[in-house]
Amino acid sequence: MLLLIPGPVTTADAVKTALAQDYAPWDNDFRAIVRKLCTDIRDAAGGVPDVHVALPLSGCGHFALEAAVRTFVPPGGRLLVPGTGAYADRLQRLAREAGRAVATMEVGVRDRAQPARLIEALRRDPDVTHVGLVCSETGSGICHDAPALAQAAHDLGRRVIIDAVSAFGALPLDLSALPAVDAVILTSNKCPEGPPGASFAVCRVDRLEAARGNAGSGSLDLADIHEHGKTTHGGARFTPPAPTLAALSVAMDLHRTEGRPARLARYTANKQTLYDGIRALGLTPYLYAALQGPIIVNAEPPAHPGWNLQAFVHALKRRGFIISNFYNTKQPTFRVGCIGAITPGDMSRAVDAMDDALRELAIAA
Amino acid sequence: MLLLIPGPVTTADAVKTALAQDYAPWDNDFRAIVRKLCTDIRDAAGGVPDVHVALPLSGCGHFALEAAVRTFVPPGGRLLVPGTGAYADRLQRLAREAGRAVATMEVGVRDRAQPARLIEALRRDPDVTHVGLVCSETGSGICHDAPALAQAAHDLGRRVIIDAVSAFGALPLDLSALPAVDAVILTSNKCPEGPPGASFAVCRVDRLEAARGNAGSGSLDLADIHEHGKTTHGGARFTPPAPTLAALSVAMDLHRTEGRPARLARYTANKQTLYDGIRALGLTPYLYAALQGPIIVNAEPPAHPGWNLQAFVHALKRRGFIISNFYNTKQPTFRVGCIGAITPGDMSRAVDAMDDALRELAIAA
Repeated sequence: MLLLIPGPVTTADAVKTALAQDYAPWDNDFRAIVRKLCTDIRDAAGGVPDVHVALPLSGCGHFALEAAVRTFVPPGGRLLVPGTGAYADRLQRLAREAGRAVATMEVGVRDRAQPARLIEALRRDPDVTHVGLVCSETGSGICHDAPALAQAAHDLGRRVIIDAVSAFGALPLDLSALPAVDAVILTSNKCPEGPPGASFAVCRVDRLEAARGNAGSGSLDLADIHEHGKTTHGGARFTPPAPTLAALSVAMDLHRTEGRPARLARYTANKQTLYDGIRALGLTPYLYAALQGPIIVNAEPPAHPGWNLQAFVHALKRRGFIISNFYNTKQPTFRVGCIGAITPGDMSRAVDAMDDALRELAIAA
Repeated sequence: MLLLIPGPVTTADAVKTALAQDYAPWDNDFRAIVRKLCTDIRDAAGGVPDVHVALPLSGCGHFALEAAVRTFVPPGGRLLVPGTGAYADRLQRLAREAGRAVATMEVGVRDRAQPARLIEALRRDPDVTHVGLVCSETGSGICHDAPALAQAAHDLGRRVIIDAVSAFGALPLDLSALPAVDAVILTSNKCPEGPPGASFAVCRVDRLEAARGNAGSGSLDLADIHEHGKTTHGGARFTPPAPTLAALSVAMDLHRTEGRPARLARYTANKQTLYDGIRALGLTPYLYAALQGPIIVNAEPPAHPGWNLQAFVHALKRRGFIISNFYNTKQPTFRVGCIGAITPGDMSRAVDAMDDALRELAIAA
């Protein structure tokens, strides 16, 4: 059974083998695994030793994103989030719930956020201290140029938090060239091809140390996690998801072996096979080719009164593929993930399975 | 290699097998796993259908405990936590960091919290709205009578949050008889014998519905988790640690087969084998037998200048047992967990390994 969803993804057998073990999280051997993992994550983000640190957090990317907002946007700060889609909406909501002031900037549902528009928005709103950027919107499939947007924020003296949850490990990211960025948020279970249950914030050390006392939450305080990790050589404050971290450590070894550009190339080939295959079935992708990112493809369902997403999902599952049973676009679509330990050959078989499934349901386009 | 720490614990092979799979968290088959798991957890807490609900949260017990305090102790509320040890201190700290007023009541480091003393403390402090109770302090090894303390709080019209993190699944708990309890907090990776990475709050539904808007954190809002789960039939708000939940579901099947009283009896036999074995080695347990709980045993190290905890931990690891490499008592101790998929026979072998290790290090008592 292959998962074709935008995370959790299909993982390699070596990752699952590492997951199926009991680990003692404070044992010295395990601390060494975590220290190496954090170094690998920092390096994959283009972080600089002693300037940046990767901090692990239990739970999903949303938790780490709330932790970053609480830690780096002080009470009284103001966060502007370009309205790129469902994940930008979530980021705005979590910041408001944490008591931070929030601003936004309109972005068309099928547009990329423009650095020039961000500059205008920041000039109009000098109280904005921070910009929150979503790299990849899995609702639509559009990827945004977070580095260029972060540079625009930097030019106006603002700081940046990047939600790289569904992009990290595939899309380019070089923190060494982005001094405005306080934190980049990522999760194990998307492009790093690890299991779900662990997230990370790659942060600037100097800003972490200046941010002590901001968070208003012990669980979600990156400054406290940093302080504790520093004094305990990789010890966790609370019980970490140890098997997930050990499995992610194996996944990051596989990531380094493959190389970030090759991983992006594989996902891009997965996407192209899927995109072309969906068109060959007579269906219409949600995005024009030029806007289509490599993480997820949305498509309009057949214009047939018998269309039923759940029935289609079931028919594909019987053929060995799991796709999402919901969508995040305004009009009905179905969505298929291109990420994980899968190849263009798998995507080609998935397209054949879609063809079969549509025929079985007698709703072929 | 057996883990003899107070969690994460040694898990059964069937649990690890369930962990080593890729799951699609929003797929209908997976939602059914989560719904059944939540029913099993509620039932194991003595919860009543429609009155209580078990809510899953990514991450450690500390996260779920913060979520319970944020959700049920409204801003302006006041939480009294009997000072039973390190975990009571943590509960006080997380409540203060979440902006809640905190009170305490002194408990001797080798005493059980007394209901009569709690009644006095609550009479003296009528502003206390909630009492936070730690069932099992893994720093000392003492278990407290949370049901009797909760009843005392009830008699004075106060509400209760129970930290059952290292007790749930072994110590008796019957929520149906404890109407004062808003929430009981537990984690997968202790007495339920699941992997780390998921925690739960078993809550009263009526109080959840009255608590909307209290939390001040989207991630840690039990009322929002409940609302979302209700409308999506077990769908998660954010990516859950799906393999951990699936593995815990298998672990809860094993728990039901063994039965809660039999699990407590096994842990008690583990503890007794360990306690007697440590004394037979000429070492002194930290607690008198009458105070010693079944979760963890602390012992004073040999009164020998060559004693080194880390060297002892290493020597035991070479013999197949991992114990804690730190302690939470004021004077030096070493601590050994009695919980997990382990038997008195395992504990007997662990005592033999301690004997060997002390001889190897030439520090036998």
